[in-house]
Amino acid sequence: MGEFKHFVIVKFKEGVAVDELTKGMEKLVTEIGAVKSFEWGQDIESLDVLRQGFTHAFLMTFNKKEDFVAFQSHPNHVEFSTKFSAAIENIVLLDFPSTLVKAPA
Amino acid sequence: MGEFKHFVIVKFKEGVAVDELTKGMEKLVTEIGAVKSFEWGQDIESLDVLRQGFTHAFLMTFNKKEDFVAFQSHPNHVEFSTKFSAAIENIVLLDFPSTLVKAPA
Repeated sequence: MGEFKHFVIVKFKEGVAVDELTKGMEKLVTEIGAVKSFEWGQDIESLDVLRQGFTHAFLMTFNKKEDFVAFQSHPNHVEFSTKFSAAIENIVLLDFPSTLVKAPA
Repeated sequence: MGEFKHFVIVKFKEGVAVDELTKGMEKLVTEIGAVKSFEWGQDIESLDVLRQGFTHAFLMTFNKKEDFVAFQSHPNHVEFSTKFSAAIENIVLLDFPSTLVKAPA
């Protein structure tokens, strides 16, 4: 069994201070040891028709599913999720065991 | 400047041979040197309301944006994309320079 991924794509509401939210997320994953790695980005290349209004991607990696479950129920995550949810217009979450086909050299 | 990411989430049409398509994608990234790493997975945990019908995530990493551009225009990718597009009911693509906040220990 490989790593477990928590993948989130988001469209924020207009006027939201996105910087504050990404800083908050950075703080959150630093506080919670169960999160193995975290990276995020804002789309700069995709065509509008393929982006469907989504602008940001957030990808968290865990060593195993149990670590993800622990993260989900962590009080800091629960608290942050409330704030985050209020700022989003649309979101898709996918949680999955990852199949690594080509590893970085 | 960090790595460049190509993130895709997909809902396949009913009756599509998903295994064949993921095998084809694995073959594709193996053939094209510009792709630094590739992993994918099928959601097993997200709530239906948060998944919005999407089932699969595909995550490609490139050393730089130019490598992504080269991948996009590679004839093998162009050929595969035609086959892939015919099999999908819904898709979101996000392409972005990645900010790595927490690196694997």
